[in-house]
Amino acid sequence: MTQPRYTPLAQSLPASVPFVGPEAQERQRGAPFVARLGANENIFGPSPKAIAAMQASVAEIWKYGDPESHELRAALAAHHGISTDNVLVGEGIDGLLGYLVRLLIAEGDAVVTSLGAYPTFNYHVAGFGGVLHTVPYKDDHEDPYALFAKAAEVDAKLVYLANPDNPMGSWHSGADLLAALDQLPEGCLLLLDEAYIECAPEGTATPVDINDPRVIRTRTFSKAYGMAGARVGYVLGAAELIGAFNKVRNHFGMNRSAQIGALAALEDQDWLAEVVGRIGAARDRIGQIARDNGLVPLPSATNFVAIDCGHDGDFAKAVLDGLVARGIFVRMPFAAPQNRCIRISCGPDDQLDALAEALPLALADARAARPA
Amino acid sequence: MTQPRYTPLAQSLPASVPFVGPEAQERQRGAPFVARLGANENIFGPSPKAIAAMQASVAEIWKYGDPESHELRAALAAHHGISTDNVLVGEGIDGLLGYLVRLLIAEGDAVVTSLGAYPTFNYHVAGFGGVLHTVPYKDDHEDPYALFAKAAEVDAKLVYLANPDNPMGSWHSGADLLAALDQLPEGCLLLLDEAYIECAPEGTATPVDINDPRVIRTRTFSKAYGMAGARVGYVLGAAELIGAFNKVRNHFGMNRSAQIGALAALEDQDWLAEVVGRIGAARDRIGQIARDNGLVPLPSATNFVAIDCGHDGDFAKAVLDGLVARGIFVRMPFAAPQNRCIRISCGPDDQLDALAEALPLALADARAARPA
Repeated sequence: MTQPRYTPLAQSLPASVPFVGPEAQERQRGAPFVARLGANENIFGPSPKAIAAMQASVAEIWKYGDPESHELRAALAAHHGISTDNVLVGEGIDGLLGYLVRLLIAEGDAVVTSLGAYPTFNYHVAGFGGVLHTVPYKDDHEDPYALFAKAAEVDAKLVYLANPDNPMGSWHSGADLLAALDQLPEGCLLLLDEAYIECAPEGTATPVDINDPRVIRTRTFSKAYGMAGARVGYVLGAAELIGAFNKVRNHFGMNRSAQIGALAALEDQDWLAEVVGRIGAARDRIGQIARDNGLVPLPSATNFVAIDCGHDGDFAKAVLDGLVARGIFVRMPFAAPQNRCIRISCGPDDQLDALAEALPLALADARAARPA
Repeated sequence: MTQPRYTPLAQSLPASVPFVGPEAQERQRGAPFVARLGANENIFGPSPKAIAAMQASVAEIWKYGDPESHELRAALAAHHGISTDNVLVGEGIDGLLGYLVRLLIAEGDAVVTSLGAYPTFNYHVAGFGGVLHTVPYKDDHEDPYALFAKAAEVDAKLVYLANPDNPMGSWHSGADLLAALDQLPEGCLLLLDEAYIECAPEGTATPVDINDPRVIRTRTFSKAYGMAGARVGYVLGAAELIGAFNKVRNHFGMNRSAQIGALAALEDQDWLAEVVGRIGAARDRIGQIARDNGLVPLPSATNFVAIDCGHDGDFAKAVLDGLVARGIFVRMPFAAPQNRCIRISCGPDDQLDALAEALPLALADARAARPA
């Protein structure tokens, strides 16, 4: 009996995954993690009002969600002062990245990103046959001018930039990015990933005209809103581009309780402000823990802190392994030279206590294993 | 400023959607529906244990779901007596259909389905540039021999067959389908959609070897399990094909509460049996309501009943419009001659009372409007 006839592209793809989940690591370890600080989840959680709304909604989970996410979109439009035609809700930013890449990128089309930026974006580019070109970070910041110059050089249809950045936590002012847009080549769309924007200082969001066809922005309820497991992201952009998602998206892909929870979360901006304050305090504490161990925390506008371990990627990996072995789930950047760092998500004090306890031990192990 | 450069395929796609949601119709009507009997949702709902599990899980919605849905997959594997390598969980059957089409169908590749079968499958085929070929239903049943003969004729890589069928509710015995498989051409994969299988008589599931590379089956928690809004579907098939989904799927696409709820629902087979009984009783009552109005209900192995309105599609559409105008959300088949029917989902007595009240009025209107 013959095998299914895959497309040549599908056949060529590796079975690799962008991230291994902490649950898989726990299964491998045979023990749960003590602290879950690796996936930039928001352990402070969503608004109690969102939790209550989701719990109440479960009794009606027999209903499909509204395929238009109309109420949530209307609320988002009001929140951002735009039209509902400028916003579309999807199954997390990850799902929306896939749809956007599919709309623009056919086999052989050029795409640009930073070396070591979000792997799931790269996964989607590869998955649709795009050719990824990278530029290095500049002083641990994504470099818009280098990205746009590379885009011009390779005739890219799409360029990815996260502001604030993951995995480094660095950021540009929105005004600087708006100015840099002048260098974006004609016919190249900027995908501006603002997943962490709520954690960033005022003025970090790029004040681009919502109908500017050069830019599409991604936002999420997974980070500051504390609902990663709900899978609610959204895109903001020109109506024509936003409307194009309707050609390819999974129209009935949204969980109904997630739609209801996101609406309640959006309406509780007081809670958001409260959580952003806690995130800021946790960033400070992570920074202090790093310094207490002779390491350098990088400035962050996100819900995590990249800690420079002071040597190369192998050393940082040894530190990370030492933390994981002690039940602290953390991750680290994939590419040099950023992979001299480990990346610690913000969390409540008990989890940071566990980090503070484990880090010196992990560091000692890593230093002992280092070739003299 | 230039527009984004879409792929030629994306540019060619219509902005059409497979289904308009009932919420959009309610917004248009300016009033909620009295009865929600149009989307084959299961109004009897999920197991109370699943509801409790989902409610309890909301407090941890800040965590991403396990990208491997390991626990749910392990439970499904045990339930079906297969290996976890033979099952993969995704964002409803709709999402999984998209991934499967993407793995197999490139622009110009041939696909076969029945004329008037599941529109969302057709949507995905068009979305990846496939060329859809259709064969007619035979006595309101999908016709495996005609489907497979057409597949041989057009060298199809993929053929779709739902058993039981939607929108007609008809079914084949699993033994008959297994025998028909001999006619499936080499290199053509059968996508056997078993979304409604739990509602069907014993012997309807096709007893195909799980590692048979000719067949992949889709199952869901949206129908008999009553969790349409959760978005949990799964595919069953040969390990190599199941593994290929990992090349393209949205690994972090699953809602965490939905994973937990589906696991609890699967574990409560007593509730499932209870609901399947209620569905059977509701089918009988819908049949009686049809006959009370001089209409013919078709036999059904699903959670809905197709009612033959006795004339053409225009007449059935007039009946449907009359029901919708009276607050009864129902749908109907898209293609002739099945579109002489309207399709009524099972539901509790109060909703069927509303149907029983509205149907004679809708029929009278439709008959009055008919050309003599």
